[in-house]
Amino acid sequence: MKKTFITIIIFLLSFAIAEEGMYPLSEIHKLDLKAKGLQIELTDLYNPNGISLIDGICNVSGCSGSFVSEKGLILTNHHCAYRAIKNASTSENDYLENGFHAKSFENEVPARGYTVRITESYRDVSEEVLSAISDDMSLAERTKAIERKSKEIITQVEAENPGKRASVSEMFIGKTYVLFIYSYLKDVRLVYAPPRSIGNFGGETDNWIWPRHTGDFSVMRAYIAPDGSPADYSPDNIPYTPKKVLKVAPEGVNEEDFVFILGYPGRTYRHRTSHFLDYEYNIRMPYVADLYQWQINAMEEISAEGRDIALKHLSKIKGRSNVMKNYRGKLLGIGRLDLVEKKMAEERELQKYIESKRKLKKEYGTVLQEIGDIYEDIKATAEFSLILGYFTYSSDLLSTAYRIYEGSIELKKEDVEREYAYMSRNLEMTKKKISLTLQDFYASSDKILFRDMIERALDLPESQRFQAVGDVFTKDNIDTKLNNYYANTNLTDDDYVMELFGKTPEEIAEIDDPFLQLAVKIYPYYQKQKEISKERKGALDQLYAKLIDVKKEFMGADFIPDANRTLRLTYGNIRGYYPKDATYYYPITTLDGVVEKTTGEFPFDSPDKLVKLGKQKKFGKYVHPELGSVPVGILYNMDTTGGNSGSAVLNAKGELVGINFDRAYEATINDFAWSEAYSRSIAVDIRYVLWVLDVYSGADDLLVEMGVN
Amino acid sequence: MKKTFITIIIFLLSFAIAEEGMYPLSEIHKLDLKAKGLQIELTDLYNPNGISLIDGICNVSGCSGSFVSEKGLILTNHHCAYRAIKNASTSENDYLENGFHAKSFENEVPARGYTVRITESYRDVSEEVLSAISDDMSLAERTKAIERKSKEIITQVEAENPGKRASVSEMFIGKTYVLFIYSYLKDVRLVYAPPRSIGNFGGETDNWIWPRHTGDFSVMRAYIAPDGSPADYSPDNIPYTPKKVLKVAPEGVNEEDFVFILGYPGRTYRHRTSHFLDYEYNIRMPYVADLYQWQINAMEEISAEGRDIALKHLSKIKGRSNVMKNYRGKLLGIGRLDLVEKKMAEERELQKYIESKRKLKKEYGTVLQEIGDIYEDIKATAEFSLILGYFTYSSDLLSTAYRIYEGSIELKKEDVEREYAYMSRNLEMTKKKISLTLQDFYASSDKILFRDMIERALDLPESQRFQAVGDVFTKDNIDTKLNNYYANTNLTDDDYVMELFGKTPEEIAEIDDPFLQLAVKIYPYYQKQKEISKERKGALDQLYAKLIDVKKEFMGADFIPDANRTLRLTYGNIRGYYPKDATYYYPITTLDGVVEKTTGEFPFDSPDKLVKLGKQKKFGKYVHPELGSVPVGILYNMDTTGGNSGSAVLNAKGELVGINFDRAYEATINDFAWSEAYSRSIAVDIRYVLWVLDVYSGADDLLVEMGVN
Repeated sequence: MKKTFITIIIFLLSFAIAEEGMYPLSEIHKLDLKAKGLQIELTDLYNPNGISLIDGICNVSGCSGSFVSEKGLILTNHHCAYRAIKNASTSENDYLENGFHAKSFENEVPARGYTVRITESYRDVSEEVLSAISDDMSLAERTKAIERKSKEIITQVEAENPGKRASVSEMFIGKTYVLFIYSYLKDVRLVYAPPRSIGNFGGETDNWIWPRHTGDFSVMRAYIAPDGSPADYSPDNIPYTPKKVLKVAPEGVNEEDFVFILGYPGRTYRHRTSHFLDYEYNIRMPYVADLYQWQINAMEEISAEGRDIALKHLSKIKGRSNVMKNYRGKLLGIGRLDLVEKKMAEERELQKYIESKRKLKKEYGTVLQEIGDIYEDIKATAEFSLILGYFTYSSDLLSTAYRIYEGSIELKKEDVEREYAYMSRNLEMTKKKISLTLQDFYASSDKILFRDMIERALDLPESQRFQAVGDVFTKDNIDTKLNNYYANTNLTDDDYVMELFGKTPEEIAEIDDPFLQLAVKIYPYYQKQKEISKERKGALDQLYAKLIDVKKEFMGADFIPDANRTLRLTYGNIRGYYPKDATYYYPITTLDGVVEKTTGEFPFDSPDKLVKLGKQKKFGKYVHPELGSVPVGILYNMDTTGGNSGSAVLNAKGELVGINFDRAYEATINDFAWSEAYSRSIAVDIRYVLWVLDVYSGADDLLVEMGVN
Repeated sequence: MKKTFITIIIFLLSFAIAEEGMYPLSEIHKLDLKAKGLQIELTDLYNPNGISLIDGICNVSGCSGSFVSEKGLILTNHHCAYRAIKNASTSENDYLENGFHAKSFENEVPARGYTVRITESYRDVSEEVLSAISDDMSLAERTKAIERKSKEIITQVEAENPGKRASVSEMFIGKTYVLFIYSYLKDVRLVYAPPRSIGNFGGETDNWIWPRHTGDFSVMRAYIAPDGSPADYSPDNIPYTPKKVLKVAPEGVNEEDFVFILGYPGRTYRHRTSHFLDYEYNIRMPYVADLYQWQINAMEEISAEGRDIALKHLSKIKGRSNVMKNYRGKLLGIGRLDLVEKKMAEERELQKYIESKRKLKKEYGTVLQEIGDIYEDIKATAEFSLILGYFTYSSDLLSTAYRIYEGSIELKKEDVEREYAYMSRNLEMTKKKISLTLQDFYASSDKILFRDMIERALDLPESQRFQAVGDVFTKDNIDTKLNNYYANTNLTDDDYVMELFGKTPEEIAEIDDPFLQLAVKIYPYYQKQKEISKERKGALDQLYAKLIDVKKEFMGADFIPDANRTLRLTYGNIRGYYPKDATYYYPITTLDGVVEKTTGEFPFDSPDKLVKLGKQKKFGKYVHPELGSVPVGILYNMDTTGGNSGSAVLNAKGELVGINFDRAYEATINDFAWSEAYSRSIAVDIRYVLWVLDVYSGADDLLVEMGVN
């Protein structure tokens, strides 16, 4: 009896640790935030019926951003504006390398393809969504029914709210669904970017690392049509006036200060079972990390040929490096914490509890087993699925061809039946993305990566054959075939590609383009895989919903749903941690530290001017009195994940004191488990942002606009 | 006026920082050690007329050691007993890899070539030594006169004290000389060594690194003849009874506790000028670090052939790795601190002061310039001198041949005229060392290293030609010649080599052995270089003596002389430090940290048993209550350098709480400058020593003998 009690306590503790805290705004009234340090009212923070901090934040093409002036000025990360800075750069005018500062509105550079999304409202639509399913449905039917219902709601809401966009987010898998209504601003411009050696100081070496010295910030601006409606870029557009402007706090924060973030965290998987973690740990993440490492090496070799060529590969390399290092951190962390084994132990305890009560046993007795069986299924053809997933992704031309053919099929369907990307409301965006992809196309690297994927496909075991590839390629003919592929395709022509989006599947199938021909051949494999995935998702959704129910009963507590790109609040304190024996990391780094880390060699090649200013202690008013230097990075125990990039870190008064951009290496496993001991996130300190703008760049205009000068 | 005052303050501070504190025991009454934390009387610590802690410590073949039992038991470092453990090891009985524990006196293994030196007394003999020189002497004559006088004193003192050894140590260069009288015990035996994976855990990767988790300790024992006299190994010998036994304190120390070390620090160069530092930084250390790296790589490749072959190279690789990493640390530190530039600035201030007073200007006006000129001279032929230095060192056979020929010449001289190595009192030791060298000879690596040195010699610029080498070798004939060299030498035969030590130079010159022939040819180059060096030393001695005088006047303060392998005291506190921005290192590491660092891969391959005991928290009575684990390493701000290896770290009561073995990476530059900010030294905590002996190895006998069980 006693033993069980202790076991449960440990179990509860481990769950408690695992669930700190990306709170949906519907839940924050349950938290006593004032006791924790908040000095403003909850309605100042979130107010569906008035103006609140929420109205000062936005989503910038997947990142978070903050409005910091009446004229739509946005603070976000350097790495969030990366594509915009890169696209504006040439080898003659290398804004990425040298930085950019638009000294007037006219000089601001359009960030093509960027959008600024603002959350207008949300409400629970679980009942409506779940009304679409019935017990006699197969699992695949179930998944499809939910998808279709969600699309119907979206379509209806968008019809009722012209100019707005809607989305239905699954909160607890298979259980709760929330409708969000957003505005999208489509004219976004680049205002300021620090040089690469500040904005990405430390590069991949320091990515996911604390102590950190990266000035990962940039300044953008949102524009609207003169009539106030969202519009594509036009010189006639005017700056957007946000409903709320966040106050910038140049005095910054100190150790242990209360801070919070309102943002759009991506995906977490804390409610998944050990089977999922086992698949991630032992199969998927190691495979992807190795594949990406190989692809990065290949692209870096080609990038050495010249700056223009390097620019074409920067985004691809950066994206893959980020994922790779994140996965390596997770793999290390999962191993170090024995997380798979721990989850299994938790599940054994849960299973014991279920089996101890007849009623529970009847209803939930096989839930864990059934979930496990599905992952066994997934593992049985994991190699094939992984190759399928990365096959089109690894070649810009093949992925373009695939989307053209897929689009031709989808566009024949009723709007709500289509894949999201091809719904009327999304088609333009999808085509824009394809254009951006083609902009970075570079034949020799595309061919090398594609060739590798073909070889991997040919090497699949007999039981997981990718026959469409085997029909076209053999180990001996790859090079000849590929030369022919790249010599005889027109898909590098953006206008031609856009034209193809009007054609039928039959017309596409008849075009004599090797990539289109291959896309047609492989298409059925993807369809079949999609069917299987939907079926599995349907089954898993139901099982996970059950699991949540019985876990709630077992623990007598509510859960916070896994992050799903919707608006969440997380709070905590500026706090260091112990990364390893006899080592403590302080939560504030300094400009002195930037100088100390500067070797002159990439990626630790701070501008000479910065080093000189640092050595001369030209700290301006941004100095931290005790540290005697300008704070550069701040660290806190808030619960963040990918998608929190660019989020405003706010102090107790709701003022902006930092821009979140990364996590510490040990915290890469936040996605699977959170711990006060090691889960730390990183922001660039507002004092460094202002120091770089003011002392380093002399961008007084921006400081005046933000109200700090 | 004000400016000058501030400049002087800064100057004083920088000197004050640079001189903390390896105190000769003649100086310690000037320190208020009680106020600093010492809880015993100074006479308990050092007492020329009675028994004190000094009598409990010894020098073990260059390292320090502590007597911890009435039966001559000595605690020192694993790396100090390394050669003994290695020599006792074979691939079947690999004590180095698996550890060693003599369960009875009979099982102890003789550590051949090891000596235990005990300081009996010392006195100032500056007047006597300096009486040998006169103003009309040339600089070379001056150096020789001092050397000769020192040898005379030694010879006389040793005649008056049979069985004792004497040495004259230069304290301040060219100024003060102290006579030390020692006893040497020649029968030393290995009692206990932990497995390599404890004693050298972390290997070269962690060498010079904190946080540290190396169990760098071993246990030896000193024996004497039954009549009480020092004697070579004999089974009839009996354990030596030290005058003083150090008390082992199993309770260990805590953060900020007062600690001190009595030991034999090697060489420091804090009183040298910027010219010296410039030569070290820009020429000598980079050259040696690169050369050693090359040699290490070559030897590691060969070591891969098998464990027996690896054992022959371990000492050579370990020694070179240690120096290389130390130099790299120094190079980094000197660069980071701009130390050359700082010294130059100090010297400019000193020069200004000298020139501000007519009398000083007359006497000291050109001192700095003259020192600089000598280093310019040294730099002009630096490459040649460096190659000369490492030419014989890189081949065991050539260095043996060289010593045979040099010995044949030296042995014809009057005893006090000889090089130290060939004085009657030292000859046996010199021959023993040669035997030990030949024991580790391995033809293929010897040839590779020798070949490289020949190539380097052939590559010297015209102005620095090493003609003797050019006369024998050309780029084209090296391999043929060398094959012939190694096929036709008898110097691998130890008995034959020892026989040669009776022969005259003429007889040696006639022997048809290629290495001896080469030694005869290169000998004059070394003689010439030695003459030049002595002349430079003579000049520098005089100039440095003058510099010390004027620096004393400028600063109005006394200096502590540079370390010179004589007995010194240093004191301080158990204290962490900030190695870099936002990072703090605690001064105590733990067994939990060992487990955390263990990857299973060399050199982080802790024994399974250790990991198991650690995970099971089998800490015995050695647990640190607050840390909840066994302390493994301790860190303190004492001033140490090479030669302090194996020194007892003593608490306020003079009890043994650790065994010093290394410094933190930032402290590699201690030899040139000391700073409270980064100069930290590392000991293995006595609690780890006892835990490994007791809980891991079950060596209760030793704990009982040390009086802790």
